[in-house]
Amino acid sequence: MASVDVKKCNDNTKSGEKSKANAKSGEKSKSNAKSGGKKEVKKETGLGLSNRKDENFGEWYSEVVVSGEMIEYYDISGCYILRPWTMTIWEIMQAFFDAEIKKMKIKNCYFPLFVSPGVLQREKDHIEGFAPEVAWVTKSGESDLEVPIAIRPTSETVMYPYYSKWIRGHRDLPLKLNQWCNVVRWEFSHPTPFIRSREFLWQEGHTAFATQSEADEEVLEILELYRRIYEEYLAIPVVKGKKSELEKFAGGLYTTSVEAFIPNTGRGIQGATSHCLGQNFAKMFEINFENVKGEKAMVWQNSWAYSTRTIGVMVMVHGDDKGLVLPPKVASVQVIVIPVPYKDADMQAIFDACSATVNTLNEAGFRVEADLRDNYSPGWKYSHWEMKGVPLRIEIGPKDLANSQVRAVRRDNSAKVDIPMVNLVKQVKDMLTNIQQSLFDAAKLKRDACIDVVKTWDEFIEALGQKKMILAPWCDEEEVEKDVKARTKGEMGAAKTLCSPFDQPELPEGTICFASGKPAKKWTYWGRSY
Amino acid sequence: MASVDVKKCNDNTKSGEKSKANAKSGEKSKSNAKSGGKKEVKKETGLGLSNRKDENFGEWYSEVVVSGEMIEYYDISGCYILRPWTMTIWEIMQAFFDAEIKKMKIKNCYFPLFVSPGVLQREKDHIEGFAPEVAWVTKSGESDLEVPIAIRPTSETVMYPYYSKWIRGHRDLPLKLNQWCNVVRWEFSHPTPFIRSREFLWQEGHTAFATQSEADEEVLEILELYRRIYEEYLAIPVVKGKKSELEKFAGGLYTTSVEAFIPNTGRGIQGATSHCLGQNFAKMFEINFENVKGEKAMVWQNSWAYSTRTIGVMVMVHGDDKGLVLPPKVASVQVIVIPVPYKDADMQAIFDACSATVNTLNEAGFRVEADLRDNYSPGWKYSHWEMKGVPLRIEIGPKDLANSQVRAVRRDNSAKVDIPMVNLVKQVKDMLTNIQQSLFDAAKLKRDACIDVVKTWDEFIEALGQKKMILAPWCDEEEVEKDVKARTKGEMGAAKTLCSPFDQPELPEGTICFASGKPAKKWTYWGRSY
Repeated sequence: MASVDVKKCNDNTKSGEKSKANAKSGEKSKSNAKSGGKKEVKKETGLGLSNRKDENFGEWYSEVVVSGEMIEYYDISGCYILRPWTMTIWEIMQAFFDAEIKKMKIKNCYFPLFVSPGVLQREKDHIEGFAPEVAWVTKSGESDLEVPIAIRPTSETVMYPYYSKWIRGHRDLPLKLNQWCNVVRWEFSHPTPFIRSREFLWQEGHTAFATQSEADEEVLEILELYRRIYEEYLAIPVVKGKKSELEKFAGGLYTTSVEAFIPNTGRGIQGATSHCLGQNFAKMFEINFENVKGEKAMVWQNSWAYSTRTIGVMVMVHGDDKGLVLPPKVASVQVIVIPVPYKDADMQAIFDACSATVNTLNEAGFRVEADLRDNYSPGWKYSHWEMKGVPLRIEIGPKDLANSQVRAVRRDNSAKVDIPMVNLVKQVKDMLTNIQQSLFDAAKLKRDACIDVVKTWDEFIEALGQKKMILAPWCDEEEVEKDVKARTKGEMGAAKTLCSPFDQPELPEGTICFASGKPAKKWTYWGRSY
Repeated sequence: MASVDVKKCNDNTKSGEKSKANAKSGEKSKSNAKSGGKKEVKKETGLGLSNRKDENFGEWYSEVVVSGEMIEYYDISGCYILRPWTMTIWEIMQAFFDAEIKKMKIKNCYFPLFVSPGVLQREKDHIEGFAPEVAWVTKSGESDLEVPIAIRPTSETVMYPYYSKWIRGHRDLPLKLNQWCNVVRWEFSHPTPFIRSREFLWQEGHTAFATQSEADEEVLEILELYRRIYEEYLAIPVVKGKKSELEKFAGGLYTTSVEAFIPNTGRGIQGATSHCLGQNFAKMFEINFENVKGEKAMVWQNSWAYSTRTIGVMVMVHGDDKGLVLPPKVASVQVIVIPVPYKDADMQAIFDACSATVNTLNEAGFRVEADLRDNYSPGWKYSHWEMKGVPLRIEIGPKDLANSQVRAVRRDNSAKVDIPMVNLVKQVKDMLTNIQQSLFDAAKLKRDACIDVVKTWDEFIEALGQKKMILAPWCDEEEVEKDVKARTKGEMGAAKTLCSPFDQPELPEGTICFASGKPAKKWTYWGRSY
């Protein structure tokens, strides 16, 4: 856990709305370059990012999501347009997760967007957590509604009155439902595309069991799926662990999460959460059943969710100064094929070779396109598809044609390889697999370099100043976490617990809490966070 | 077009909220039957519907969607819970449609739920059509918003400011986007599950082209997909045609639709619409581009949508007095396998045969489940799965076991066949195909029996009284349609045009309009509608 790349942990600014202007100017140069109806070959200029990831991260992020054509800023603050380049990533993750939960016999449903105030307020802790962010509909057409109606910030209170109705006996359990939907949280602080938006897309699972052990088991099964989304699909290392009492879900029993880390800002980010709600909601919503012994019992419940935030984490972790870097498993286009014309070259033969390459690879199951536009130079196209993060570029010029080969260039490390056409499918497959793994390995190396193990308050403060993800022995007391927050308050935001990792290092007897001096009960990750 | 089954065209009442009470009482008896934790074998009583489709259609509909476990009524009027039994149908149609539009190079995106008032009101005719139904958010938490924000009733005005931004040159065209989302129309008249709800799920496609001919072509390509959803998936005959000026989409150039008909209420129902918007929105939102000649031009636009209404039409058309009848192509469970125990029978062997049957059929690609619960009688299970509309039931008893066969019973016509185990996959496949076709044929026969061709006002009034779908020669004048509406106003609602079918019967020269006496220009379907 030595810090091999401390520079990566140094921050600049927090990403946010303020860089919108910059993003727009970046866009203008692009659309400018695209607007020509005439057959004028564009230069490579004007396409790059005007911000650097290591210099001004927030502006870089806002610029790259727009220039990479993932996001368009919308005229209502905190709302964003998800463009096709984003939706494919979302749909690929959705196909994976949806199939996995169907194997677990979890069924999809759709509950209304609207909640009546009485139901929303039924669970006290829960509504306290969400009330300030709830959007209220008070009018339809020109008429005032009799009662204002809330838009779901999450659906516990929407669903559970019906769980109470549907669940009567132990044979009705487990009840396992999921929905893919939009939710609204009218936040005011630092709206950021994907990461913190007023409306976002997610799935929310809501399950009810006869016993706690079944609920406990499912919490971890789902968390493992979230880990797989991050690590296997988005190539982002995450830590699985349990949230502190202060950070757990409002109204729940305990919360588990996968936590990612953004080296550039030195902030942890909650990747997805799987909550055991215990019996708190069951009590408030009277979700009772007759158990096998014929006695009245209360159900145990879970809820769990991941959202489009996942995509923002991916952009932050992998993107670079040339633009997006998409992991092959989630990329809309995995391979872009670009013809490289030379004077006196047989252009038709080159175009045919490009089309043949696309067909061969598509038939082999890859997502491949050719950019055959004749009003852009190859260099412009390279930059364009680099900006969009396509994992692999294939160039075909006269020399390649003559040698029955193509040139493949990796987006992640710019490595170039000549591939004989006869090996095309096999080598592209290997390269994509390799890119996927390399992205994960590189991200893990960077993340690990940001982890600091501390044992004292002074070490903690020093590590926090260096924007580390800090692993420290902790007494696990809520008051101590509040105290740490208070003592670290500042312009950058206070430190808080990220999670207590399930994978606990040894905690020698007599170890004391870094903050309170009391006996430590566990190792916990601390840091600033999104 | 002779009326072979006039009785089916006779109505009762319009379906709606008022039958909620009935639906609930039907439900109570069901959940009552399910609540027992003890191993008490239930009788067949209490499971059936308390309303008859031909006697009180509205109540029957509300009861069947609840008892069939498709819908749960929600505590906000006009909002409904879509249960897993519904969602599978939706997902199957979605998988078909989404794959088809992707072949057409239409890409998915996601635009925000919220619209600012200025943008919403940009296209005058459009906002006039939707204004009374728009829900407004005016508060977040305890604070009033600076400006009220609308919830999308449809997304033309949400999207098109960005089309204006993205489209510069002819190379940016066509721009073809689609989104799967929820929309809100705060209607006050007769909320009905699926058919007329305040929030519903749909897809909305929004495309922009350089030329009208491209737009025209796509309108029909999409309409054909809608026809296939109804006819191939939901087994419902529809008429493809063009809407009148009065009935077209607010702000559009022309609207095409697929129109279904509900014999029991004698009402037409708009199944899905594919609009050519012409250049009206392009003008208001300044969606211009530089064409191949380097001149400034305006785009031609389409928008098109189908919604969860499709599912309501399916329930209305196929359901019967035993409950839902699901077409095999969209059924969550296509085959339900039920063990039939007898005294002294080898129960384990029967259960094993049930499981083996399920496995064999699942491996062959069918959606099959066994109901092995030991606290319900076979009779109760038959009724239960009939209520839920499962297309095919397989019963396995000692005799079947001895003869290496199963008994298959069709939901649609109760026909029973013994199938030798060796032929299982082949015969089940044939039966499901046959059921799908039979449902369509039966629905078409009934629908056709409701079509009346009229030429005079008197014939028209008589046919309307008999709740027909009326095909009449029309002068195609807006004032005449308004006049027909005014003259037919009444408790049941006025008659209006459904569509002018693309498949036009011959219109002999000199044919006059049934309503105005002016020269007729086309044949048009008229009737009451949802």
